Amino acid sequence: MSPAAVALDIPVAATLRTGAIARARRARGEPVISLGLGEPEFATPPAVLEATRRALAEGFTRYSSPVGLPELRELIAGDLRCRGVLLAEPGNVVVTPGAKAAMFITLRVLLRPGDEVVLLEPCYVSYRPQVALACPGAVVRGCDLRRDDFAPDWPALAECLGPRTRVVVTNFPNNPTGRMLTPLELSRLARLVAERAPGAFVIADEVYDRLDWGGVRLSPVGAAAPVADRTITIGGLSKRCAMTGWRIGWLVAPAEVAAAAGLVQQHLNTCTCTFIQKGACAAFAAGDDGLDAYRRELDERAWVLNETARANDRLRLVPPQGGLFAFLDVSGTGLAADDFAARLLETSSVVVTPGNAFGRSWTDHIRVSLCAPTAEFRTGVSLLDRFVRGLP
Amino acid sequence: MSPAAVALDIPVAATLRTGAIARARRARGEPVISLGLGEPEFATPPAVLEATRRALAEGFTRYSSPVGLPELRELIAGDLRCRGVLLAEPGNVVVTPGAKAAMFITLRVLLRPGDEVVLLEPCYVSYRPQVALACPGAVVRGCDLRRDDFAPDWPALAECLGPRTRVVVTNFPNNPTGRMLTPLELSRLARLVAERAPGAFVIADEVYDRLDWGGVRLSPVGAAAPVADRTITIGGLSKRCAMTGWRIGWLVAPAEVAAAAGLVQQHLNTCTCTFIQKGACAAFAAGDDGLDAYRRELDERAWVLNETARANDRLRLVPPQGGLFAFLDVSGTGLAADDFAARLLETSSVVVTPGNAFGRSWTDHIRVSLCAPTAEFRTGVSLLDRFVRGLP
Repeated sequence: MSPAAVALDIPVAATLRTGAIARARRARGEPVISLGLGEPEFATPPAVLEATRRALAEGFTRYSSPVGLPELRELIAGDLRCRGVLLAEPGNVVVTPGAKAAMFITLRVLLRPGDEVVLLEPCYVSYRPQVALACPGAVVRGCDLRRDDFAPDWPALAECLGPRTRVVVTNFPNNPTGRMLTPLELSRLARLVAERAPGAFVIADEVYDRLDWGGVRLSPVGAAAPVADRTITIGGLSKRCAMTGWRIGWLVAPAEVAAAAGLVQQHLNTCTCTFIQKGACAAFAAGDDGLDAYRRELDERAWVLNETARANDRLRLVPPQGGLFAFLDVSGTGLAADDFAARLLETSSVVVTPGNAFGRSWTDHIRVSLCAPTAEFRTGVSLLDRFVRGLP
Repeated sequence: MSPAAVALDIPVAATLRTGAIARARRARGEPVISLGLGEPEFATPPAVLEATRRALAEGFTRYSSPVGLPELRELIAGDLRCRGVLLAEPGNVVVTPGAKAAMFITLRVLLRPGDEVVLLEPCYVSYRPQVALACPGAVVRGCDLRRDDFAPDWPALAECLGPRTRVVVTNFPNNPTGRMLTPLELSRLARLVAERAPGAFVIADEVYDRLDWGGVRLSPVGAAAPVADRTITIGGLSKRCAMTGWRIGWLVAPAEVAAAAGLVQQHLNTCTCTFIQKGACAAFAAGDDGLDAYRRELDERAWVLNETARANDRLRLVPPQGGLFAFLDVSGTGLAADDFAARLLETSSVVVTPGNAFGRSWTDHIRVSLCAPTAEFRTGVSLLDRFVRGLP
């Protein structure tokens, strides 16, 4: 008999579960429209592919520095400096196999048992499991966004913050709401954290950077004076360069945190794939040219969804402004989100993700991914609309 | 003022530190012979490079399953089954960005505060930090190998094992000693673990698999009946395919452990780079043809070192039989290992790693890497010999 394995209290990410359902149905030959996963459908920029091929041919197949190639760290830091993040020198950067790994390493470095982590909910599905994995003794305090506009609920947030707060996680453009933070909101948030939680760091998950397509530009949290010296910026190329399968990300942190993160990275991953880092350098050199068309498409899809919601009494949408998702209020249907998603898949073969995956109290919302090609997206939204209209 | 960052009690890996010293001296234009790092000097097999290029061209740039591509998991499992590891079906495999990540994930899944981890020392430098990172409340019990032949010290090991033992880590071919385990030693070890530590898992770090060049073939721990159902095999392509910079590894575990490891991997890394996994498949198809020449070279370098040690009264070597390292007894010099390494670098520009990096009590040994090209290796060893003879 084998000894008992630990039952870790870690859920399967709901976002991946819906992806699996869609794959399974497709494998059975059933047409499925997935408004589930957040994976850009365009191709990795040719310059990145070419640089990676060249790096492979030139033998960049060996260990590199645990913290990342100097030229890539310089590009990452320079990019943030250009946008007002002052604490961004190459020495502040640690390159990791994906933004998720960067987030985990940061949490592992910062959290001690009893520390509190404040999450603005709804939020990305992996934050809670990552906190549990990084430090089982840390406590998550979920603070719901305002339901009518997804702004921070200021009095509730003020109450969540305190001397035991060790980490506040922000994520703009936001998954799942598509919300941006205005400059005013950012400075208010920064002041609140600095005043009420003087021992706290802010982890700014800015992996949807560059996907601020709706008019409001991303204000990096690391550029907000009251928290600039205590902000760790998480970034990556998965979303903005359609490099989800490459696994390349980074953290940019105050020196002491970056040094500790470099040590964790060294013992966890040794280094990040060397030739992929060379390819990543080309992504910076290439700039954002290819991205403009994609940003317009996302904007158009958001518009389609918004017009549909406006014309349907039972749907309500806070129009998304960035990222890859919208968070649709389906309370008017009387269905719980889980039920809504299951029946929509059953009757209309459209995959969406129930809102409660992103925060306990969001059982009356569903997340709609904007990543399906526009024609397919339109069909999916129109099937969703018809499904809602057909409900008793 | 920034809030205080956590001072994690994680040392810089001594093996990487020596590499950094060597790089720094080379950057200053000083010739250095590195017998430090364990990185094969041959090139990644062409078939792997070609398969990776093809995968890039064919768009394998997106998310893949968190646990790995089905075809790669089948190849990994099949390879182990061929060598007697019965608990190796594709469902037992989780592909990770490197063997180090596989080890960390396994420790994270298994360890609970108070659990004991038995390490046979000297051992790989990252095991202790990895235990501390995975579960700060777990306790490491180091059990020294016999000093005259690097076999397990059976009575001492029996004493280390008990009801609180949760994990026993084995590593053959061994880093740093180059030792293999004979089939008899393996069955003895397996029986001892099963009898004295019924709640324990064995983590068999077999990342130096295929580098059993000295005559004794690797006996996979997962093939030893008493512990077969509680063994997690860690593997990777870094060493046997000179793919250190690619970051591709895996764990093969009992179903319950594999399932939990898959969840941790999902929240830690999402997945392993998709096109690198395609390349890894080609490594299995290519077989071990290219490896024979390299194995002969390692064998020859080990011979050079052994002959040198035999002819020098102050050196003693247990001849290595596999892997990339030898562990040289320098107690006859009267110098502590740290001091020996520092003075050897100072006077002779040869980098070695002090033995105490691999276990506290090994202050009278140094690790010699067999990875330098043979001519350079000969020069390095002869400089080392001359250095020792010149000591008072």
